[in-house]
Amino acid sequence: MFRSRRTALRALLRAAEVDALLVTDLINIRYLTGFTGSNAALLVHADSDAASRFCTDGRYRTQAAEQVPDLETVIERGSAVALACSAGSWGVGRLGFESDAVTVDAHAAMAEAADGVVLHRAPGLVQQLRVVKDDAEIEAVRAACAAADAALADLLAAGGLRPGRTEREVALDLENRMRRHGAAGPSFETIVAAGAHSAVPHHTPTEAELRAGDLVKMDFGALVDGYHSDMTRTVVLGPAAAWQRELHALVASAQAAGRAALAPGVEVSEVDGAARRVVDAAGRGPDFVHGLGHGVGLQIHEAPALSKTATGVLAARMVVTVEPGVYLEGRGGVRIEDTLVVRDGAPDLLTCTSKELVEV
Amino acid sequence: MFRSRRTALRALLRAAEVDALLVTDLINIRYLTGFTGSNAALLVHADSDAASRFCTDGRYRTQAAEQVPDLETVIERGSAVALACSAGSWGVGRLGFESDAVTVDAHAAMAEAADGVVLHRAPGLVQQLRVVKDDAEIEAVRAACAAADAALADLLAAGGLRPGRTEREVALDLENRMRRHGAAGPSFETIVAAGAHSAVPHHTPTEAELRAGDLVKMDFGALVDGYHSDMTRTVVLGPAAAWQRELHALVASAQAAGRAALAPGVEVSEVDGAARRVVDAAGRGPDFVHGLGHGVGLQIHEAPALSKTATGVLAARMVVTVEPGVYLEGRGGVRIEDTLVVRDGAPDLLTCTSKELVEV
Repeated sequence: MFRSRRTALRALLRAAEVDALLVTDLINIRYLTGFTGSNAALLVHADSDAASRFCTDGRYRTQAAEQVPDLETVIERGSAVALACSAGSWGVGRLGFESDAVTVDAHAAMAEAADGVVLHRAPGLVQQLRVVKDDAEIEAVRAACAAADAALADLLAAGGLRPGRTEREVALDLENRMRRHGAAGPSFETIVAAGAHSAVPHHTPTEAELRAGDLVKMDFGALVDGYHSDMTRTVVLGPAAAWQRELHALVASAQAAGRAALAPGVEVSEVDGAARRVVDAAGRGPDFVHGLGHGVGLQIHEAPALSKTATGVLAARMVVTVEPGVYLEGRGGVRIEDTLVVRDGAPDLLTCTSKELVEV
Repeated sequence: MFRSRRTALRALLRAAEVDALLVTDLINIRYLTGFTGSNAALLVHADSDAASRFCTDGRYRTQAAEQVPDLETVIERGSAVALACSAGSWGVGRLGFESDAVTVDAHAAMAEAADGVVLHRAPGLVQQLRVVKDDAEIEAVRAACAAADAALADLLAAGGLRPGRTEREVALDLENRMRRHGAAGPSFETIVAAGAHSAVPHHTPTEAELRAGDLVKMDFGALVDGYHSDMTRTVVLGPAAAWQRELHALVASAQAAGRAALAPGVEVSEVDGAARRVVDAAGRGPDFVHGLGHGVGLQIHEAPALSKTATGVLAARMVVTVEPGVYLEGRGGVRIEDTLVVRDGAPDLLTCTSKELVEV
């Protein structure tokens, strides 16, 4: 699997006219090798794996031998500089580097070390591969989504959403339930936002207690084998007021329109537009203050962005969220979010929790 | 507090010969403003706060108004580019940027936007302030250390370390106990490594069960108000074998030597040396494969590094770890780590759990 990803990268290296790519982004390194440590660099040579090198420091000697048995490994502390320094001796004339990840200072250090080698900006090459998921990746995201679905079902069944509990208690409860369903942990900082807090798009859970009549917005996900899930549901504690019901219905319609627009070849801005037009038509456009969604995979936010200003088209096997929200400051907000796989037919829904308005 | 930190930064700006610093590192922004969101930029003008600007996007409008009430705020999606673009109109001729945090591509975008403004590399200026902690910071780290101490005491008292439990169960148990003692969460991925796994310096907890006779290494910390703690203790399940006792005693001696070397004015490499000489003298030098310690604060790893190759001297109010480890591949390893404040007299020990060998 890792070998075939490196083979796919090689085709891009030839197009980018570099002899090798120095990969320093740790997520990209994990994608290409399976290595999960916190310090590494990888030189992918355009010729072959045999000409490529993996580098990490002494703390990870054992781990590198286990996780990256198929690449020659160099143990050295300053991994990127070490590989840049030796690149010339491995026949590299033009060395691509990830200019979207390498800092100005790190670039200067590499340039100084890479004697006789030309450093060439090569941003986003591995991301270009990562945007379309292979089967193993889709199954990992599916498992992460299932853990989140199961955790929310358990929470509701156990009466875990009730007046008097704090936002933090509910967030921690969800996280522990995801772990019980196989997650290594939450895929990002769990959002539980009750009452007026639900109108803050990215609210951090507080000691505020849930109260009867509150909208409670929960945005959370699980991490499984390094892959993330992302889901938002907004419920009401007790019978919903008319304005809450109306707000929820509006967001649910917009979300359905966004999901329906997901198909290979569609402009990402048009997917956003499909949902946004529903909100605009209700006069709530100014209260939908963020983009419609984003890619999900080894990172919680990755390409493609689904927003008004984003460019590009969808392709089959992209994994994205669809998450419109409408926020009424001081009163409350509703967001509904799924994670889906773009398919040639209808998209594959990975987060399967009902989107009907739940009155707890 | 935030205002006085910005005032301290201004003195460095004059020395760096820039009219303003464009801060884009989110940790540095939190240090200077208290803002905790995930997208922001801050232009600190050398003249005054009145001439400075904070920028974030629409999702954080409410949060910015609450957390950064004392700076004029611009709401714009591409925060760094937006501020770079307007810098000229605010009288900035030379604009410093964090070349140790800004990517090559982001720099290119800023340079294009900053018409008529010269971008000047200014790495590490805020870090230079952050390395010496103020009272509020030391108290936050102390609270984080206390939560970790209390969690480990509870775990031991509750019989939470016993044969048959998995590494992951123990890790999660520690994390939940830290939360009960006021932590927002763990300060990094908790390490619980039993038996031969304890010889892997940065082991990720697995489903492996603890067994009688195992060395169990626990490296963990708590997060309180954004500040981190860091502590390692290694225990034995049941009576210790002679080699385990000997290994533990060696590491404890080295750790004591490292702590004793902490004082203002001492070279950081000499602190590492004080501990390393103890390990070398026992013939175990090659099995102590990492540096002695690191600074702790808003990041789990920050300046100063205490290692063989690091340069610089300690100062009062630096917060650092001292954590020698000796690892016998395939058998087991011991690491003992404290978090301490460098003081004019003896250092202030923040992690108070006993360092005697515990036989559980």
